[in-house]
Amino acid sequence: MNIGIVGLGLIGGSLGLDLRGLGYQVLGVSRHPGTCQRAIERGAVDEASVDLTLLAAADVVFVCTPIAAIAFTVKQLIPHLSPGAIITDVGSVKTAVVEEVAPLWQNFVGGHPMAGTTDSGIEAAFSGLFSGNPYVLTPVASTPPKAVKVVEEIVRSLTSRVYFCCPEDHDRAVAGISHLPVMVSANLIEACMGETNPMVLELAQQLASSGFRDTTRVGGGNPELGVMMARYNRDCLLKSLLSYRQNLDRLIEQIEQEDWQSLEKKLNSTQQGRSHFLKAVD
Amino acid sequence: MNIGIVGLGLIGGSLGLDLRGLGYQVLGVSRHPGTCQRAIERGAVDEASVDLTLLAAADVVFVCTPIAAIAFTVKQLIPHLSPGAIITDVGSVKTAVVEEVAPLWQNFVGGHPMAGTTDSGIEAAFSGLFSGNPYVLTPVASTPPKAVKVVEEIVRSLTSRVYFCCPEDHDRAVAGISHLPVMVSANLIEACMGETNPMVLELAQQLASSGFRDTTRVGGGNPELGVMMARYNRDCLLKSLLSYRQNLDRLIEQIEQEDWQSLEKKLNSTQQGRSHFLKAVD
Repeated sequence: MNIGIVGLGLIGGSLGLDLRGLGYQVLGVSRHPGTCQRAIERGAVDEASVDLTLLAAADVVFVCTPIAAIAFTVKQLIPHLSPGAIITDVGSVKTAVVEEVAPLWQNFVGGHPMAGTTDSGIEAAFSGLFSGNPYVLTPVASTPPKAVKVVEEIVRSLTSRVYFCCPEDHDRAVAGISHLPVMVSANLIEACMGETNPMVLELAQQLASSGFRDTTRVGGGNPELGVMMARYNRDCLLKSLLSYRQNLDRLIEQIEQEDWQSLEKKLNSTQQGRSHFLKAVD
Repeated sequence: MNIGIVGLGLIGGSLGLDLRGLGYQVLGVSRHPGTCQRAIERGAVDEASVDLTLLAAADVVFVCTPIAAIAFTVKQLIPHLSPGAIITDVGSVKTAVVEEVAPLWQNFVGGHPMAGTTDSGIEAAFSGLFSGNPYVLTPVASTPPKAVKVVEEIVRSLTSRVYFCCPEDHDRAVAGISHLPVMVSANLIEACMGETNPMVLELAQQLASSGFRDTTRVGGGNPELGVMMARYNRDCLLKSLLSYRQNLDRLIEQIEQEDWQSLEKKLNSTQQGRSHFLKAVD
């Protein structure tokens, strides 16, 4: 089976490395000739080109561009595809993507591999990125079951944990556990940067250690990706942020009123609640 | 030199392991006979007792109890100490502790080793816990320089990074980089637990991965410790929380108004700002 990949960054490149390792023929397309060259040198693709015509031979195409470019890429791609080809994407938001792309191409299956590092680009790609991590597929009523099955089999071969849901449930779930953490974490960095006493600021910078590092990791990540999350998952993220702010108001009130019993109850409940979210991780 | 340790948990036990390794004679006191026994078996102390009279022979005593018990412990300890003995503590809040303890004992030096794990108790103690981590000493005008020097030398022998500041600056700095992260992180868990659609909640629990895990680590920690931070560093923490909420309101406004330019500016600034806090860690 020939697999096409458009966008040879961390995700596209890592997919290529894994899929070639599994015996697939991998055809890669990037806008940059230098990236094509490096993808071949790194063994992430069998052939690479800046030209989408390379994908005429592809049975399945993974669109691995930033979210904002997915629909545009699919439009450019369609004239070159064989009629039975299947398209899937790797965007971290699904409703907006699926609503725009599904009407363009029957054999489209929305997807979201929940894996990544703080690095990006073809040099950051590595084999095994998806192994053990969630990979969500979001078919809709109009998606042909056969297309879903083909994508599912490829994704399972990466030893990902595969989940199925509708695009709306996906976006609501990731708004809470993935997009909200980015905003909360960035906001924490900003609050700490806002210290007005220069001596205290310097001391804080020296004393910050593992707790600060972990809590701020995702808030110190790729700014463009953060904006894309907010832009394409705006309604769900706003809902999560407003619920977060409501809890924050209550927390501040508890501390203002020295209501230590309620605060301890809250911290007990979050300590226990956290473990339910990390059963699959630990 | 004889070193006394009151409270043989993660911090007290780890101190004992390191200090014995460096050749000090270590005398340990715990309220629980079983803990005394285990501390001896684990090699964290040379002698242990439930009775503070053991510390009559100590030149320096580390009070490693929870914050709420520090002043009480010092009061109980004083009748048994030799007049020249030095007391230091390991509480994560300093103003409240120093204000209460400094008038009780001339040779008192406030201290805060910024090291820990999610585990607690003597079984969690290990050698090397403090190595490379910050250790803050907070002498005040009345603290004898000789006492400060003795504590500093012991702490440097643990290969900690030693910092000096006044208790107030310490509390303001840790409010931002240590106590605020706990509250922000606990609040994130609570917001995610509050998902009202059971299917979405279950999906979120399955999809939560490294980003959620890291951002929520400190918020899922020891609830009692979280309450102690809020209780003993209330004013500084409230100040940090209010500044955080102000930033959060601006963030929500940016997303509501689709002001992506301002959001990107913010995320760029936090990405760069974070690195200034982690120079010593990375």
